[in-house]
Amino acid sequence: MFGASTLIVKIVGSIGVVSAGLDLGKEGPMVHIGTCIASLLGQGGPDNYRLKWRWLRYFNNDRDRRDLITCGAASGVSAAFRAPVGGVLFALEEVASWWRSALLWRTFFSTAMVVVVLRGFIEFCNSGKCGLFGKGGLIMFDVSSVTVSYHVMDLLPVIVIGIIGGVLGSLYNYVLHKVLRLYYLINEKGRMHKVLLSVGVCLFTSACLYSLPFLAPCTRCDPSLPENACPTSGRTGNFKQFNCPDGYYNDLASLLHSTNDDAVRNIFSTSTPTEFHPISLLIFFALYCILGLFTFGIATPSGLFLPIILIGSAYGRLLGLVMGPYTNIDQGLYAVLGAASLMAGSMRMTVSLCVIFLELTNNLLLLPITMIVLLISKTVGDTFNPSIYEIILHLKGLPFLEAHAEPWMRNLTVGELAAAKPFLVTLCGIEKVSRVVEVLRNTTHNGFPVVDHGVIPPAEQQSGATELHGLVLRTHIVAVLRKKWFLPQRRRTEEWEVREQFTSVDLAERDQKIDEVVLTEGEMDMYIDLHPFTNSTPYTVVESMSVAKAVVLFRQVGLRHVLIVPKYQAAGMSPVVGILTRQDLRANNILVAFPHLAKSKEREKSRVGHA
Amino acid sequence: MFGASTLIVKIVGSIGVVSAGLDLGKEGPMVHIGTCIASLLGQGGPDNYRLKWRWLRYFNNDRDRRDLITCGAASGVSAAFRAPVGGVLFALEEVASWWRSALLWRTFFSTAMVVVVLRGFIEFCNSGKCGLFGKGGLIMFDVSSVTVSYHVMDLLPVIVIGIIGGVLGSLYNYVLHKVLRLYYLINEKGRMHKVLLSVGVCLFTSACLYSLPFLAPCTRCDPSLPENACPTSGRTGNFKQFNCPDGYYNDLASLLHSTNDDAVRNIFSTSTPTEFHPISLLIFFALYCILGLFTFGIATPSGLFLPIILIGSAYGRLLGLVMGPYTNIDQGLYAVLGAASLMAGSMRMTVSLCVIFLELTNNLLLLPITMIVLLISKTVGDTFNPSIYEIILHLKGLPFLEAHAEPWMRNLTVGELAAAKPFLVTLCGIEKVSRVVEVLRNTTHNGFPVVDHGVIPPAEQQSGATELHGLVLRTHIVAVLRKKWFLPQRRRTEEWEVREQFTSVDLAERDQKIDEVVLTEGEMDMYIDLHPFTNSTPYTVVESMSVAKAVVLFRQVGLRHVLIVPKYQAAGMSPVVGILTRQDLRANNILVAFPHLAKSKEREKSRVGHA
Repeated sequence: MFGASTLIVKIVGSIGVVSAGLDLGKEGPMVHIGTCIASLLGQGGPDNYRLKWRWLRYFNNDRDRRDLITCGAASGVSAAFRAPVGGVLFALEEVASWWRSALLWRTFFSTAMVVVVLRGFIEFCNSGKCGLFGKGGLIMFDVSSVTVSYHVMDLLPVIVIGIIGGVLGSLYNYVLHKVLRLYYLINEKGRMHKVLLSVGVCLFTSACLYSLPFLAPCTRCDPSLPENACPTSGRTGNFKQFNCPDGYYNDLASLLHSTNDDAVRNIFSTSTPTEFHPISLLIFFALYCILGLFTFGIATPSGLFLPIILIGSAYGRLLGLVMGPYTNIDQGLYAVLGAASLMAGSMRMTVSLCVIFLELTNNLLLLPITMIVLLISKTVGDTFNPSIYEIILHLKGLPFLEAHAEPWMRNLTVGELAAAKPFLVTLCGIEKVSRVVEVLRNTTHNGFPVVDHGVIPPAEQQSGATELHGLVLRTHIVAVLRKKWFLPQRRRTEEWEVREQFTSVDLAERDQKIDEVVLTEGEMDMYIDLHPFTNSTPYTVVESMSVAKAVVLFRQVGLRHVLIVPKYQAAGMSPVVGILTRQDLRANNILVAFPHLAKSKEREKSRVGHA
Repeated sequence: MFGASTLIVKIVGSIGVVSAGLDLGKEGPMVHIGTCIASLLGQGGPDNYRLKWRWLRYFNNDRDRRDLITCGAASGVSAAFRAPVGGVLFALEEVASWWRSALLWRTFFSTAMVVVVLRGFIEFCNSGKCGLFGKGGLIMFDVSSVTVSYHVMDLLPVIVIGIIGGVLGSLYNYVLHKVLRLYYLINEKGRMHKVLLSVGVCLFTSACLYSLPFLAPCTRCDPSLPENACPTSGRTGNFKQFNCPDGYYNDLASLLHSTNDDAVRNIFSTSTPTEFHPISLLIFFALYCILGLFTFGIATPSGLFLPIILIGSAYGRLLGLVMGPYTNIDQGLYAVLGAASLMAGSMRMTVSLCVIFLELTNNLLLLPITMIVLLISKTVGDTFNPSIYEIILHLKGLPFLEAHAEPWMRNLTVGELAAAKPFLVTLCGIEKVSRVVEVLRNTTHNGFPVVDHGVIPPAEQQSGATELHGLVLRTHIVAVLRKKWFLPQRRRTEEWEVREQFTSVDLAERDQKIDEVVLTEGEMDMYIDLHPFTNSTPYTVVESMSVAKAVVLFRQVGLRHVLIVPKYQAAGMSPVVGILTRQDLRANNILVAFPHLAKSKEREKSRVGHA
């Protein structure tokens, strides 16, 4: 998922997408590039090119890899929006499923580095050496020049923006979900279909971008503007001449015939109440609604921020035009608030969006009303459907645990959940090689409980007593099998024997396949001592614990496996009744096994609906 | 700790402190006031005035109270600095010991309300109706007017600021720690000593503030300034006349004879390279170092932000004077960076400080260098001592779990920790009243494991089998005793019997004392069925788990008690070997019981020192 080839494809792809003028954000690929680099660093180099640095293996453990990936995602966002603090918060609010203060510090450090490097490049490119890069400095959509003055009465339009933004945002989520499902069906039919779909969307985009400005009326240039500022025909600028006579400009062309960033900058431009014709804005809004919905699912690197900002800013500016006579707030600020409301209505983030908008627009006085808009849109949106990220994760079937346990999870115990799974495979502390190989070949589990029989210390010696030794990971067993570290007879090994054979780097190796291990008849009859490779203190839960509580434990501590221990203590019983993984705890997987819970969930929903 | 009387004392006290001109921040009392209000809301009203609203009891549970208190703290910070996003992050980085996305949303909502109300008041007070309140608008120390331009070469002074700030910050922590310990000794001697100490510090402060400006030289007013701007004699302004002739001003008087906020504003003032004489700044710096160290511990509501900002800004401006010829950065910005570096060096926060400074100064272009300064100071400071908040928490002995488990905690199992505790008290599922009362009177534990003997379901019936039923809280037992809900014989009760007797509000009642319960001889011979009041799925750990892992579990899931279950499963054994609380897991408490770990810790330190 985060390999070297992905990295190259993403870099090339995102450059192509942006230069093709498709309605896609850069932040998606940026985040992906950041996480790819982080993941490669964590692994010590790409898997398939034998370019591994062994010292980097230090990071090759679950926790550090997760931290690195979070840092990578934060750096991606901060590079895309030049918003270092926003990037940190985005990573924490949306990406990281758990949180600790060291992680905060690390992400902050990586985004600080991103800004310093960005700043260096902008400095270097200042003299126009790098095309459009660095134009506009560190702040992308600067609206700090306008002094925001508003009164209590202006709260009303702000609330209206928030409510409409929330409704639009959830509607966007709903339709995008349908479109993505359709696209998955098309994309599954083969490569040809994928390419055709992408080419079709590209052609449609180009055709619209070129032809639609002909529909817009020409506007006379404001004579108070400096000479050469209107009309222009260059790559940037608010007033493009296009098909208009001298002294006139085509406002829709100014929006469509420039980079997406410039389009946003134009819509956000303040103190220009008559610059954009309502009809042009309406066409722009409608066009980007369609493009935003139909472009995201094609087989290219893509992000959601920019399409939503484009739609939202057009909607905000339109609303500003309508409200014009009744309010003190500038139309450009309406556009900013519209963009913020649609973002919150669709993505349902608050703090990180607020900071990203602060860093994008550099207007601190706008902060209070931005906060209100974000809160209202998020609340309105949440009443209709989940956030767009949750929808996409759900579509892709990734084992991402929801932040909240569902209410019906309280009525199900982990014991019931474990009983519904087909079977539990336990291994003995000292196990025959043939049995280990058989277990690994016939199951896909990544962790196995290790149980010892009759090895209680003398003082407590009793018949039939068993001991739960811990949890052993599949990768570790495979590592042992590859090294062929077998024992001719059943015996416990000493620690130094293991130390001699295995370094922590050997055990950190991932993705080892059991199929690659070839064993002789004689080796199959030997024994493996699993004790040294077993995590002897796995997290455990009692079988009567509710699933909701187990979800909290998984999510907060960031676990992969939890062992379920029995409630009753008696001789002869197995000391472990099951094992839970992230996949087991996902709401959908539980509902497949327990359909009656789905019904009770619907009943609850309809009851809430009637109440 | 968060009662109604505290609230009133804090409000009156903080007004008094600020108007006395003491070197103390407002944010400490503000946070405390916010948390008091939150805590009162959570309880449904003050305890002792019979002013309780029953509907508010809804929040009277651990989780919601904690959330409310976090919101209160965030609101306090955002009110003190007019920094809503900074307040949220401060609460998350420093106050909350655990985190979930719903909490983020809630704190964000409360700070948004704070800003809206603040904004309303500022609007209302605009015409000068409220004295100095609202002067300067929503941004306290605005330096946005200056365009920050810096080059790669300017990174060097920035790094120097960071390093010196880190060293100064940790030095401040070290000395403040000593002073606070001295003050605790003095304050313990009685009220008279407390009052004398406070009065002494007040007198010293006043004397210094009045007399020191006589030492400063008079400076001629810049003739380019508008008339009446220099010299002034009002409450605000950069150029106070004081003892100087007409046409001259006393720069030290301008800093000392105004509110602390104004002093900071004056030092941060940009494009005024010759305004402050180095000697005046040096006196100011030295004075506030002394005041900052000796004022914090006196018996008044106090905060640390402002004293540190004052010291840091003076140090930064001094450094700016020295570096003047070699750099492009304005002296005012040096002062800002100096303040940031000392804050990070003392408090060791990164993201929240960064956002607070952004919101205080409203200069987004300063963000990259602020980030670098914060990172460097924090790193330098962390090599010397813990953050000032950790030092104070440690001095006060509050059971606040450190974010990180200490390395030596990996070598200790929870079983060993439990064995070192004097004794474990378990209760039976159906227990005699006399035994329950005896246990409650003779222990101070807040939770007891409940164990059932021989109540295994038929299929698994065996002799001597025991079952861990769960964990019962002291408050719940006391509630049962107060209601005198006893059974004449040993029997399991039905759920409806309990529902009839107890509402969730009864059980949420806190601070019930066992001493207030009076029971007759006959009642003592009856039985209590503890099953309905028992949390039957407490979090458990196996006795062989390391203390480090248990700390992570406590901290991440936000627990109060964890039961320790045995590693070996055999008939006749107790199904629980111990119980862990937050107090048990604090590093210091463990070191008292296991002094050899402290030695190994020191050995490790000295080894690191030699390496």
